[in-house]
Amino acid sequence: MAVKDSHRARQAQATKEQVARAARVLFRQQGYVATTIAAISDAAEIPAQTIYSAFGNKPAILREIARIWIAEADTRRLAQESLALADPAERLRAAAHWNTRQFVAGIDVIQIYQEAARADPRMADEMQRVWAAREHELKLYLESFDGDLAQPQDRALDIFLACTTAEVYRLLVSDRGWSEAEYETWLGDTLVSQLLP
Amino acid sequence: MAVKDSHRARQAQATKEQVARAARVLFRQQGYVATTIAAISDAAEIPAQTIYSAFGNKPAILREIARIWIAEADTRRLAQESLALADPAERLRAAAHWNTRQFVAGIDVIQIYQEAARADPRMADEMQRVWAAREHELKLYLESFDGDLAQPQDRALDIFLACTTAEVYRLLVSDRGWSEAEYETWLGDTLVSQLLP
Repeated sequence: MAVKDSHRARQAQATKEQVARAARVLFRQQGYVATTIAAISDAAEIPAQTIYSAFGNKPAILREIARIWIAEADTRRLAQESLALADPAERLRAAAHWNTRQFVAGIDVIQIYQEAARADPRMADEMQRVWAAREHELKLYLESFDGDLAQPQDRALDIFLACTTAEVYRLLVSDRGWSEAEYETWLGDTLVSQLLP
Repeated sequence: MAVKDSHRARQAQATKEQVARAARVLFRQQGYVATTIAAISDAAEIPAQTIYSAFGNKPAILREIARIWIAEADTRRLAQESLALADPAERLRAAAHWNTRQFVAGIDVIQIYQEAARADPRMADEMQRVWAAREHELKLYLESFDGDLAQPQDRALDIFLACTTAEVYRLLVSDRGWSEAEYETWLGDTLVSQLLP
């Protein structure tokens, strides 16, 4: 019985991921607002009724897209591991690495969220909460530097956030054709020169 | 006769500016898409028919808003003058000054243009042209540094653009509460450390 249940749960989760992956492509190509559940149903080859039962609404599909992105980019583990690096410059370059990885894996998801937030105040609130959680994690990360920073903690956090805005990544990589490796090296150098004495 | 004509032209221009200033407040507060000519007419206390005759449509009003912004920020003159500075670091700090001034005078106009560009492909094209013109001017500005830059010209331009995105200004000044002077100093220091040997 338990085996059957867990099989069913796995199947349900597989269906959700299939829907989320198809929806992500449509959201990216046609926009979040313009994409209907019917279109997602066609693209995912999953009946619309199943999508409604699994998610309820479009915001829930976007939440699943974000969950998959964060799980696959695996940045939380990378951030944890990099805390073990003793050299502050190495630790900042590691931060450049996991930030870059997060952008590479999901710059489209960030853009979709930004569009959704403009159209739907609840999504704007949700995005605020996600940014606040990220900010909190970065704050803890920067606290690990203790006396090593050239700036007070608050200012260091502001500068870290400024260097890692999605728009700068998009400008350098998507618009100006930098490779992801070039961006990562630049970001690492910049964080070192901005935050260390 | 000529005196009368020029008087009439001045009056027409005064009316246009009155409409543009009222429209700018509404676009900022309620959004470009949501603001009607009727609402602008009420706010500017100018008959809607006069607005239609003077502008034709909403994009033309936004163009006038942008023209006033650029004229008042007076950055072209500042940029020209700063080319006379012999010291490269001073010239970059001067660039930080006129960039900051441009943002202070019109970060709302940039945001309105971004919204208009998302809603209207013609406005997106127009914004592309404005960015391309800015890029061209910055390219010429950076060429004045000749052999003084630590980076090839193209890369220096990319980095200059990345440091001066509207989003970074917005994050530091609007969201994180930096003063305009703090932003300008940070931008100057950053351009110097990023672009000079």
